[in-house]
Parts: sequence; C-alpha cells; structure tokens
Amino acid sequence: MAFRLTILGTSSALPTSDRNPTAHVLNVHERLFLIDCGEGTQMQMRRYRIRFGRINHIFISHLHGDHFFGVYPLLSTYNLMARKTPLHLYAPAPAEDLITRHLTDFDIHLGFDLNVHTVSGRSMKKVLDDRRVEVFSFPLKHRIPTYGYLFREKVSDRNMIKEKITEYGLTIEEIATARRGGDIIRENGAIIPCTEVTLEPRRPASYAFCSDTAWFKKLPAYVSGVDLLYHEATFGADNDELAVKTRHSTASHAAKVALEAGAGKLLLGHFSARYRSTAKLEEEARSLFPETEAAREGNTYEIG
Amino acid sequence: MAFRLTILGTSSALPTSDRNPTAHVLNVHERLFLIDCGEGTQMQMRRYRIRFGRINHIFISHLHGDHFFGVYPLLSTYNLMARKTPLHLYAPAPAEDLITRHLTDFDIHLGFDLNVHTVSGRSMKKVLDDRRVEVFSFPLKHRIPTYGYLFREKVSDRNMIKEKITEYGLTIEEIATARRGGDIIRENGAIIPCTEVTLEPRRPASYAFCSDTAWFKKLPAYVSGVDLLYHEATFGADNDELAVKTRHSTASHAAKVALEAGAGKLLLGHFSARYRSTAKLEEEARSLFPETEAAREGNTYEIG
Repeated sequence: MAFRLTILGTSSALPTSDRNPTAHVLNVHERLFLIDCGEGTQMQMRRYRIRFGRINHIFISHLHGDHFFGVYPLLSTYNLMARKTPLHLYAPAPAEDLITRHLTDFDIHLGFDLNVHTVSGRSMKKVLDDRRVEVFSFPLKHRIPTYGYLFREKVSDRNMIKEKITEYGLTIEEIATARRGGDIIRENGAIIPCTEVTLEPRRPASYAFCSDTAWFKKLPAYVSGVDLLYHEATFGADNDELAVKTRHSTASHAAKVALEAGAGKLLLGHFSARYRSTAKLEEEARSLFPETEAAREGNTYEIG
Repeated sequence: MAFRLTILGTSSALPTSDRNPTAHVLNVHERLFLIDCGEGTQMQMRRYRIRFGRINHIFISHLHGDHFFGVYPLLSTYNLMARKTPLHLYAPAPAEDLITRHLTDFDIHLGFDLNVHTVSGRSMKKVLDDRRVEVFSFPLKHRIPTYGYLFREKVSDRNMIKEKITEYGLTIEEIATARRGGDIIRENGAIIPCTEVTLEPRRPASYAFCSDTAWFKKLPAYVSGVDLLYHEATFGADNDELAVKTRHSTASHAAKVALEAGAGKLLLGHFSARYRSTAKLEEEARSLFPETEAAREGNTYEIG
C-alpha cells in the first residue's frame, strides 16, 4: 500500500536552471494529492510520469505565484484532455475569486466540476476525510495567509493469518469482522478474539507540508509525531535576518521544528537561488536533527 | 554581429515530457527579443542561459495560455530581481487589461515601467523601429485575434577598406560618411565615391514568426523573402481536417507558405502531443520545401 512523496520543485520564488517552484505529489494508495503548484508543475509531472488523471485533489498553501501559477495552465490541460471527474482545490481566499476571474478572462469553460474549498482559520482543521486518509490544514506565519497540510493515513484493517481461516473454518463475514478489529462471536456463544486470527496492521503513515513560514512556537505541535516533515529552508543561518524579514525559515529553524515535533524524518526545500548547492543547508539542519535530507526534484520518498 | 534564434519551446497546448510551450528568443546584435511566452519560459531561459536583463521587448502572438501563461511569473521574477529598465510588451487586446487585473489581484507592484503596446489591425504594421531592427506585426487566422511578427535587421553600415584610410588620409567624418553610403566630397571639389573606399555591407537578415494559424492565401506575402520562417505545424497531413477545424496548420501548409514566400529556410514547431517524434512532420514538409527543419528546444539557428 503506497504512501510516498514525489518532489517536483525545490526552488523558492526565483527558479534556477535545475530547481523549479514548489510542487509535491503524495501518493496514498494510488490516489494522488498535488500539494502546491508553481509554474511548470505540469511539465514536471510529465517528466516524472505522474498520471494526471489520478489527481482529484490539489492543496495550495498560499497565493504567491511560485506556489500557485501552475494551477491555471493545469486547468487548461485538464480541459483539453476532456476531464470529466470533479477536481477539488483547497486554498486560502481569494483563490476562488481569482480562478473564476481567470476563467472568464480567458474564456475558458471547464468541462468538469472545479470545487474550490476555502482554507481558513487560526487553528488546525480537518479539510478532507476519505476512506484512506484524513487531511488537516493548519496556519503558518508568512506575509500573506498561508497554510500547512497534514496527511494522516487511516488505520488499515488488521492482517489475516491465512492458516486460521481453515483452522476455524471462518466465513467471509467473520473474516471482515476480525480484520476490522472485532472479536468473532459464534452462534453457540464461542468467542474467537480478533488477535487470535489476525495480526496488527501496519502503523498508519503521516506527512506534513510546511510551506513558506517564519519560525513560531506553536508549529511543532501541529506536526507532532509526523513520519515525514517537509519544511521550507529558504535560507541558511548565514541569512537569519533576511529569513525573519521575509517571514521565511532557515535550515536551523526547520530542524528545530522537526526536533520539537519528534518527526521521523525532515525534508528541506524551497531553497533560495543564492545557494547553488544545498549541501550546506542540509549539514546545518543535520547538526540539530540528523535525519534530515535536502529534497531533490524527481526523488520519491517512502513514508512510514 | 549576431542575428540568431534560440528555441525554448516546441509543444502545442499540451506539453510533453520533452516539449515545452512556445517561446523563442531572437538575438539581434545582443538585444534579445522574447517571442511568445508559454508556461515555464523563464525556466527554459535559465536552462539555456538566456540573460534575463537583456530582454526589453516581449512579443505575444495571442492570448491562449500556451503562448502567454509564462508572462505573469516572468514579471514577478523581474520584480524580485529589482529590474529598473522599462519593459515593452506587444500583444493583442485585452492583454493590458488582463495584466493590470493580474497585478492587482496578486498585489504585485512593479518596480519598473511595463509598457503594453496593443497589436491590432488587418494589415501589416510596424510596431518597433530601433537602430538595429524593424519589427512588423501581421494578422494570422486563428480562433482568437492572433498576430505574426516579422523582424528585419536594418541595413548595416558599409565595411571600410582599411588601406584606403591611409591612402586617402580620410578623416573620421569622411569615414562615417562613406560607411553610411555617402560619397566623400572634399573642399577642393574632389569626389571619392563610397564604393572606392568601402565594401557592400552584409545583407540584412530577417526572421518571421508565424504562430498559431490556419492556412490563408495572403500569408506568404507578409513573409516574402524572409531568411528564416518559423511556421507552426501542429499536425501532419494525416490530421488535415483537425487542422482546419482548430484553425491550425499541417507541415504541408507550412511548407506551402515557405515555398510561396521564397523563404530561405523553414523551421517547424508547435507540435501536437500526438506526435512523439517530429521526423514525419519534417519529412512531410521537406517533400515540398527541402530546406525545412523541425525545431528542437535549446537549439540556436544563425540567420542570414
């Protein structure tokens, strides 16, 4: 069962010859979630063989161009591909107004339903709840309203011990009951505990996306215990003042969040064009939080 | 003296893993003209080392996204780079309205003058006239108002024959006169014909950009005698009906224009994603007009 992240862009606002604006694709059991969508995201999707039709949900952290300008061309592409499946887009206001105006301006008539869900508020909120995953938004601290997203896989069914099926002569209903964690109660009153015929399911995986943000005290609590924490590291400690001024983070800030949150692993991104290599940023964060990696475009990270 | 074209994008509306939307950069004596600006143009500029600061003029053929969606992010980038030099953008209406609204919507305050020149009309018009080049717009036939652009290098100064300077003891003013093609008239009435002391200048080069268009009778006249003709070839003859329906051209249509115009060379582009290889389109056009090449991204073509 897949729970993995593919990185499509690692640059901050100024793209470089080998770094594109922010875009992540999270694969949860073959449902794809697109997270941020900077310019050129659809080209990166082509390059890394992300299947366009598998994406039904797009999560936008904020309305700065390097996180959003890929949305308009992607909508055009879906329209040209004769998409019929509804598309859900989660973003802070005024995303819906902007998109509506854009479609009017360019005389684009979508052949599918685009549902724009406005993300808002000053606390954590559940924005999506489906069979496999729950998604939460939480506020970040940037120059304009900005949100992070937390993806939590739902507890999977318990794993059947195959031999027990014949041993107890279990029916399909009984198997389903045990896999969902219920004890089997037979007509004669006999009880077969689910722990007798099934094993603990895989621990559900989780991923948190902390887009553009300054360091703030409450952040680690939002992403507490997450398996993989993506956190922007636009700058290194050498540009601490600039980070504060522009409401961005340094690699050290990101590591501090990972450490306090007790994250499993930290992935850095959104690198300023001034850093040709990201090795120093990675090193800086590792000195505080060893399980750190600087994100690389096209790389896929297995989670949990 | 440079007169050369670099291709940044060769796809039509649906980009592929190795083809980006339309964008060309014409270098005229180290002034760079950006022609069309689809999504991802600035990343392609980085990739192929096009110097951002050298571009002061952008020419947009029409307001379909695959020719225009790269403008917004490019403007943001120029702003972040603290551009001060005025930027001129030529495009059909309502480009100016769209850009103004976009800047307002995203609260972007440009630190440089953006001069939007509206391209219009049903005949050829001169839209730019500077020391080195003249640029003309001409109407194409597409689903929305669309214009092609013709770039004509200005006649260069004649080339001085160095030995003649000492032979005649020419002054700086006399040299300048002869290089501009004037005969030198001395105080004693003696005339030194410019052809005696200078040689013919290099023939001025020309480039025509025929973006999205259906075949129409008048087109070859607009681009008559051009050294390099770029003409879209979205389809091959196998999709002739589709070309007519969508107001695009086939490779054969493009070749027909080149042939009737007496072009020096034909460059094809704007390929539909259905053609994985462009070899067949190239072949189709070559059977009518042998000096044809399918454009390749990153390639630079010397003109004249």
